[in-house]
Order: sequence, then structure tokens, then C-alpha cells
Amino acid sequence: MESVLFKGAYVPGQGNVDVGVRGGRIDLVGRGEAGNYDRVIAADNCALLPGFVNAHGHAAMTLLRSAADDLPLQQWLEEKIWPLEARLNSRRVYWGTMLAIAEMIRSGTTTFTDMYFFEDAVAQAAEETGIRAVLSRGLVAVGPGFDQAMAETREFVRTWQGRGDGRITTLVGPHAPYTCPQPYLEEILDLARELGRPLQIHLAETRSEVEESRRQYGKSPVAVLEEAGMFALPVLAAHCVHLSPEDIDILARYDVRVAHNPTSNLKLGSGIAPVPALLAKGVTVGLGTDGAASNNNLDMMEEIRLAALIHKGAHHDPTLISAQQALAMATAMGARAVFLEEEIGAIREGFKADLILLDLDKPHLTPRHNVEAHIVYAAQASDICLVMVDGKILLEDGHLTTIDEERVLYEAARAARELLEQ
Amino acid sequence: MESVLFKGAYVPGQGNVDVGVRGGRIDLVGRGEAGNYDRVIAADNCALLPGFVNAHGHAAMTLLRSAADDLPLQQWLEEKIWPLEARLNSRRVYWGTMLAIAEMIRSGTTTFTDMYFFEDAVAQAAEETGIRAVLSRGLVAVGPGFDQAMAETREFVRTWQGRGDGRITTLVGPHAPYTCPQPYLEEILDLARELGRPLQIHLAETRSEVEESRRQYGKSPVAVLEEAGMFALPVLAAHCVHLSPEDIDILARYDVRVAHNPTSNLKLGSGIAPVPALLAKGVTVGLGTDGAASNNNLDMMEEIRLAALIHKGAHHDPTLISAQQALAMATAMGARAVFLEEEIGAIREGFKADLILLDLDKPHLTPRHNVEAHIVYAAQASDICLVMVDGKILLEDGHLTTIDEERVLYEAARAARELLEQ
Repeated sequence: MESVLFKGAYVPGQGNVDVGVRGGRIDLVGRGEAGNYDRVIAADNCALLPGFVNAHGHAAMTLLRSAADDLPLQQWLEEKIWPLEARLNSRRVYWGTMLAIAEMIRSGTTTFTDMYFFEDAVAQAAEETGIRAVLSRGLVAVGPGFDQAMAETREFVRTWQGRGDGRITTLVGPHAPYTCPQPYLEEILDLARELGRPLQIHLAETRSEVEESRRQYGKSPVAVLEEAGMFALPVLAAHCVHLSPEDIDILARYDVRVAHNPTSNLKLGSGIAPVPALLAKGVTVGLGTDGAASNNNLDMMEEIRLAALIHKGAHHDPTLISAQQALAMATAMGARAVFLEEEIGAIREGFKADLILLDLDKPHLTPRHNVEAHIVYAAQASDICLVMVDGKILLEDGHLTTIDEERVLYEAARAARELLEQ
Repeated sequence: MESVLFKGAYVPGQGNVDVGVRGGRIDLVGRGEAGNYDRVIAADNCALLPGFVNAHGHAAMTLLRSAADDLPLQQWLEEKIWPLEARLNSRRVYWGTMLAIAEMIRSGTTTFTDMYFFEDAVAQAAEETGIRAVLSRGLVAVGPGFDQAMAETREFVRTWQGRGDGRITTLVGPHAPYTCPQPYLEEILDLARELGRPLQIHLAETRSEVEESRRQYGKSPVAVLEEAGMFALPVLAAHCVHLSPEDIDILARYDVRVAHNPTSNLKLGSGIAPVPALLAKGVTVGLGTDGAASNNNLDMMEEIRLAALIHKGAHHDPTLISAQQALAMATAMGARAVFLEEEIGAIREGFKADLILLDLDKPHLTPRHNVEAHIVYAAQASDICLVMVDGKILLEDGHLTTIDEERVLYEAARAARELLEQ
């Protein structure tokens, strides 16, 4: 793999520096000698950032993008999403995931988190395209198929953990407290312990989920999971929209990582997560797009902007969630949210070279008073001109280097048609 | 001017049709003969929309983009924005506006509304670049300069109303109820009557504005303006975040048009405007970016998306503000908000040819289940591949046809430096 020197890029928090990449890792941050690298990329009109970590999503739901919108949640799920998902198969999930990866690379995501069905197809797409991925087979204990899903999870983790030169890691994925009640949850925690992998779960996404939990168990979903001992294991909890102060204390005490999904929570009418309170208690909060059916894109720059905007508006306080905090949620905190903080999420010598370059020479990024604020409040996905994962360039000059994009668009459109027509 | 036929584009609400343009107006919507036009643009992988109407802004504030963020409102205004604005002059406003127009054309805005100082420079930039503009010199009665501002308004309207083949229209622009109290407001209304032009005003933007009005006058700012007789004239009111049910009834009764600025209202911590309630009462609501200092870009596609998202989240109701409504706020309703509904905002024979073409052949717009939902929830400014105003192409193949963009970036950056260094 060729070594690369990014010359003179603006790195948030570090100013204009050179960043060297060799053997898939960052080997220099400071002043680099051009002669020491195979290739030099002049980056003095650019910002260089750690690639974005999409901390929660369902990649293949790109196939359902704009298939159903602006509906009440239960009608959306029961009449639209679930019937279409029932028609998924491995090939369709593969092409939906390929489409998602093409879109994610183009918008600066270098690591994505996934929980879905036919997860081998997701892992295969991640391995082929060179993106980093944190993957789990979704586990639902209500209804049939739980034992098979558990067996598939064991097999999935054994097959894929560490594949693609370590780019692929795995999680155990109970879907939600209400779909994985006791004693199933106990089995799932045993499996996570056996496999030595962290867990990912949807948690406190809607008001009705919390009300139903209080009615049934006399406590919140967070308290239910605490009592079940889940938080003794490392956990990534997606959404966490409806939390009491006690819930927030529990999440903080056990170092539960949270994936905040602002667009999806707004679009589905779930609400606005108490992110300022979570951060104030020291909880690690990453950002996610959720699936494209409830977003309807996978653009992390929009999630960063929304994370910086909506809490200010909801609390009438323009000092909440600074540009720096929003950016950290998509990078360093996002890496910690998906258990990769030792490897990615920062531009630091020895870290994996997951990097994105933004072209600042644009009307909407002029004048250049504050590059961090530009990135959070003014930039757009199309400003990203180069994407690198593990030291390999995946996007340059508008072209994806590892994906036959024309074929992906064709096959994904075909798979989507099949879901509707079958 | 050459006649153009857009062949086979998807037009929201009308399906795949041909749209012909001749002499600055749409002369055909249906099936067109290629031979009847000077030029045919194959648009079968595209959506064709009315250009976006930016119903509220301060274009030259691009010079202050990211100059100050994440601060309490009064500190932001008093320590940052006002001292910098005090250093504005005609040249600086010209280049800041040119920068804004470059950005707005690139993101699909074909009509922008403005209220600022040195408004002749704004009008000059609009005339030169070919964009449509609805302009007002801001009037502030507290402090010195009111008489001069009134004289400048009279001169401005007489000079610019209808210039640029009718592309430029004018408004009378009292800044806000609290900066234009009686008897000054009475003078301003007299001037609007004399000039025969509608008014534009900031209204009920912050909670403290409303509280102060109730303390001082015993009524809301909306009720104060009603009592002053302002709503007997046509009025565009920007923001309208903090409204009582009685305020909403007043706005509806007098057909006051509202400019909703979701990003700015969130970023400054002003809150979330009651747009669903306004629409339910039949109030015309357009969308605006406000100035780039509180946004920090002028991208109407982001305002459309936010308008469709935030009310769902704030009210826990995913059926509020459909994709179609959000798009209408940026087009047909936006046109009505700025008093141009007879000329623009729809793709209809006889209307001005203010059109934008979006390239749908993108990963994030695949598969194509619903183009309206794609445009609102998934598309981005860079998908816009052609922009036409008054039948003239202003953006094509990534290039602005009427703007020397390199020079604009240079001059705007220089003007911004001067504001900080002086």
C-alpha cells in the first residue's frame, strides 16, 4: 500500500499540520518530509478530519428509502416496513448494503454500525468495499426464530470478528427490551459473555415504549436492563430519547454508550433525546443515521448539524452542544461508542488511517473565520473530496475506488422493485 | 434568449412531463416538440422544480459566517455581530451579497428576500447576477439615523422597484416592533402607503421580545402591530416563533405572510415556531435561511428538511408537515409569502421560468420510490445541476454563468478580513 503525506491540511484542534500515512496507520502529525512518502497530497485549502463513525443504523434499509413517510409509527411499521422486510433475502440485503456503503463513503463515513437480518451479506459488502464496520445480527425473542437467530449470532461472530484486516468487528444485538424480555435476555447475555463481545440494543426510543415498560414492570426500560445485569457488560444503546434523571444516572454509572439519532427521532415523531444532560453526566454519545427508511439518507454531516442545532432550540439555549462537541460525537466519542476508541476517531500517530478531506474552497465555506463551525454548521457531504479507510483511498476525484457504482445503483433498484412487486 | 425544452423531467405533482421555456416564461407543460425549441435538455433522470424562494435573510451577513457561534444571544449580538456590522460599507455589502448569491444559486434559490444596510449594493448585485430579489432597507427608529433611513427607503423603492426586467421588487422594512415603536411605526406605514409597497418585519422571534412587549404594552407584539393598523397593509413577518393562539388568529385574519427560519431559530436558541398551527389556520408560511451568521449557510434544501422534521419531533407526531407541505413552503407558498404568487413558485404555463433541475442518479436518491420524499428528506444542494431564472441559465455543469466565482471568493474574504482587522 502506498504511503501518503497530506500536506498543510487544517486539522480541527491541531491547526495546519502535515499528516503522514504508512501501512494503514497515521505515522506522523506535524511537519513531514515529502521525500519520505510515495505520494504527497496538497491539502492547504482543505480540512482533514477523522472519518465519521455512524454509530447506529440498518444499512440495507436503503432499499426502503422513501417507500413510506409521514405516517403514524405503528401504521408505518405494520403496513409498510415489516411487510417489505419480510421479503428480504441475502442477495437483496447485500445490494442494499452496497448502496448504503456507496452513499456512506461519499458522505465521509468510514465506520458504520449495523443491526439487521442476513448479516453475513452485510459483512461481505463491508469486507469487499474496504469500509470499517461494527456488525450484529438482530435478535428478536418474540415470535419464531429466536434459537436460529442465536445460533446465527454465534456463527456470525466466529466467522467475521476481526476479518478484513481487523476492519470488521462484531456485537451481540438484542433488538430491544420489549422484544427480548426475560428469560431470553439472560440467554443473550450468556452468549455475549461466551463470545466476549459487547452488546447493541434499541433503548427508550419512544414514549409508549417507556410507558408500557412502567405499566408492565413498574420501571423504565433502562432500569429493567440494569436489573437484568446487562450493563455489567459493555453496551451500545441506540436512541435513548425518553430517559428520566435516574435513567441517565444508570447509563453514566455503567458507562453505557449511547447512539443519538436526531433525524430519525424527529422524523418518526419519537422526540428529542436529552443529549446535553447525558454529556453533562459524562456519558459517551455517538451519532447515527438509523436506517434510510426513517431518515431518508445516511449523511452523517446532517446528523452532526442537527445534533448541534436541535438541543439549542428545544431548550432555548444557544450555548448547548458546541460545534466541537457535535464533531466529537461523530468522531472520537463515536469511536468510543462503538468500542474502537483505541484505534480510530482521532488524528494521532499510531491510530488507523481513517481520514476524510474536505475542500474548503467553496462559496458556502467563505470567509474562513472558523473551520470547525464551518464543518458543523455550513458544510455539506459533497465538500468531501477524499475518503481513506485503513490507509486505503476509497473516494477520490468524485469516484469510488472499490465499488462499481453504476452496477450497485442498478442492482439495488432491482432489489427494491422486487420487494414491492413480489 | 434561446428557448429551451426540458424533456421528460419528473415534476412534483405532475409526473414526467416536458416543460418548455420561451421569452423568460414557461410556455408549455405537457408533451413538447423538440423542433420547436432552440435547445433540448434531456431530463428523464431528473426532477424539475420551481426554484426555491428564500423568504427571509440578510445576504451580506455571509461576511460574518462562523465569526461567532454557540454564544448567548445578547453577547453574540452586542460583542460580536453589531461591532462587525458597524464596519460595513457599500463595497463590503456588495461583495458579501455576491458571495451569498453565488451560494444561493448553487443551492437552488432563484428568489431571495433581503433586509439590510447599503441596500443599493444588494440590488446592484441582484441585477448583475440575474437572480430574483425582494429587497428592503432595514429601518430602526431607536438611535440616530431614522430620518435618513426613511429617505433612503423612499429613494431605494423609486430607484429599484421593477428593475432587472422586473426581477427586483421592493418592500418597506421596519426592523421589529421593539426597534420601531409608535409614533415611528405610524410614519413607516404612511411611507408604505405612499410607495404602494408591502412591509417586511421581524416578529415574535424570541421569548424575551414577547415578555417585554407584554410588560410594556400589556399585549403581544402581534397585537401591538394589529392595533397600530399595520396589518391593514400586506405584511411579511419573519420568525413568528412565540405566538399565542390569539396571535395566530390575528395573523390568519389579516393574511399576514410568515417566513419560518428553522435553522436560525434553533441555532440562536429562539425556539420552534408553531408552523403546524399556522398552516392549520390557513396562514401562508414561506421558508428562510436568515443571515449566514446564524445558520451558517444559505442552503434552502436544509430549511425544507428541517421544516419537515422538527415539528414532527417537537410534537411527537410523524404526520405533521408532510414532504409536500415542506416543498410548498419553499416554492408556491414561499412565492405568496413574498407577494410574487402570480409570477413564480409553480411550473405552470405563463409563469416566469424560475426552474431548478435535480440529478436523481445518485446513491442517496436510489431506489426511486417517491421523488417528493427524496427531495425533502434525502437530497442535497449538490444534486442541483441546473438553475434558471427568468428563462436564463445561471448554473450549469457546475459553473455559475453570470458570476466570476473566483473573484467573488477573493473579494468577500478580503472584505471579511477588513471587518475584523480595522
